[in-house]
Amino acid sequence: MVGHRVWAIPEGYIPGPSFSEAHDLVSHEAACILNASDSLASIELTLYSENREPAGPYPVSVDARRTRHFRFNDLNDPEPVPRDTSFSSLSRSDVPIVVQHTRLDSRDPHIALFGTVAFPVGS
Amino acid sequence: MVGHRVWAIPEGYIPGPSFSEAHDLVSHEAACILNASDSLASIELTLYSENREPAGPYPVSVDARRTRHFRFNDLNDPEPVPRDTSFSSLSRSDVPIVVQHTRLDSRDPHIALFGTVAFPVGS
Amino acid sequence: MVGHRVWAIPEGYIPGPSFSEAHDLVSHEAACILNASDSLASIELTLYSENREPAGPYPVSVDARRTRHFRFNDLNDPEPVPRDTSFSSLSRSDVPIVVQHTRLDSRDPHIALFGTVAFPVGS
Amino acid sequence: MVGHRVWAIPEGYIPGPSFSEAHDLVSHEAACILNASDSLASIELTLYSENREPAGPYPVSVDARRTRHFRFNDLNDPEPVPRDTSFSSLSRSDVPIVVQHTRLDSRDPHIALFGTVAFPVGS
Repeated sequence: MVGHRVWAIPEGYIPGPSFSEAHDLVSHEAACILNASDSLASIELTLYSENREPAGPYPVSVDARRTRHFRFNDLNDPEPVPRDTSFSSLSRSDVPIVVQHTRLDSRDPHIALFGTVAFPVGS
Repeated sequence: MVGHRVWAIPEGYIPGPSFSEAHDLVSHEAACILNASDSLASIELTLYSENREPAGPYPVSVDARRTRHFRFNDLNDPEPVPRDTSFSSLSRSDVPIVVQHTRLDSRDPHIALFGTVAFPVGS
Repeated sequence: MVGHRVWAIPEGYIPGPSFSEAHDLVSHEAACILNASDSLASIELTLYSENREPAGPYPVSVDARRTRHFRFNDLNDPEPVPRDTSFSSLSRSDVPIVVQHTRLDSRDPHIALFGTVAFPVGS
Repeated sequence: MVGHRVWAIPEGYIPGPSFSEAHDLVSHEAACILNASDSLASIELTLYSENREPAGPYPVSVDARRTRHFRFNDLNDPEPVPRDTSFSSLSRSDVPIVVQHTRLDSRDPHIALFGTVAFPVGS
């Protein structure tokens, strides 16, 4: 049983501009999810905003013994994630997972990065 | 019950200079707070310094099911936060929250970033 | 007993290009391991991918009262780690250790860095 | 009782070069310590190396209700910290504290930063 079922990422912000549209260099915000279990992980992401009710759930999944690095940029259903706008997220999984948060900010061609393990809020 | 009521951020430092005064690019230090509960979160921030008694409390709030990304730059009551000066902070909330710490350093036009989940010190 | 035996790093990505091949400046991804115990730590790393079964185990060790900063770039047995490819890792040790994750991205000569403590998933 | 008495920082590395010798811009590695208690915190730092026995203890202190941001660069007694060399550290305090780790890398004039909460290994 590697990890927890519910994870919070209080910080979220996708910079609108990017110096490059190459996939690896476009400004992005990601949730990197490890599912070390032997079962498919079905996960619902909920996005919290500063001035409206939460958006979602956004359903995603990670196969058994796999990782997936999801970009919040790519979430479109039920609605896209606004750029240049502060948000937070909760990930609720049916099996234990581990979640890490990364941003690549390429507004300037000399990119800035950060990454931190998310916060487990439920077993 | 998502999170904890008391959070510490030992690192704090607002660089005085910024290459740009645009809101998204000015040098800043932020506490990003997720309140996933169904109640308003009333929070008191206390700022610790290297050479004087703590400042505050600074009252802030986050509505139910909302996030807010507070900049320490914007705290003015009871007193502003000195620039170019090391500090630490404690956030005490009446409902469980999750806190993440971010700095954007734009002393140089090629910005540097970091972000890390704060440390929960009370349930 | 300083630390835990099993640690997860959900984020992993070794940028292929580097502006310099100098050892300290080549793009790299590292697991920094502290073994504060009085026994040798024998550790197995397992790497999880997005689209195939996990790779490994990769055996590494850290002497008693020592640290080692392992680069995923240097892992070659049983197989090298693909560049420009998302992965995750688990470290399983026979004695308690503490693990921190670092990336240095030198695709651009103005490097970007991040570092975060890994997530402990087993005592 | 805010925090823990023993904290680990597995990652440590002070880049030798800096583009500037200004105090705020020289390459440095810091342990930012919050002592929110009402007692002086007496702390011993031990530094772990890749190829020799640990160095220290380095005695430091943080007054009651104060923070201090210690630079490993400034530790000289019993011996200085080698530059361009991997290390780890343990901080042992007699009262609960909270520790965050920061690096500023100014080998290039466009600095890189990271910061992460350290890992609590003892109550």
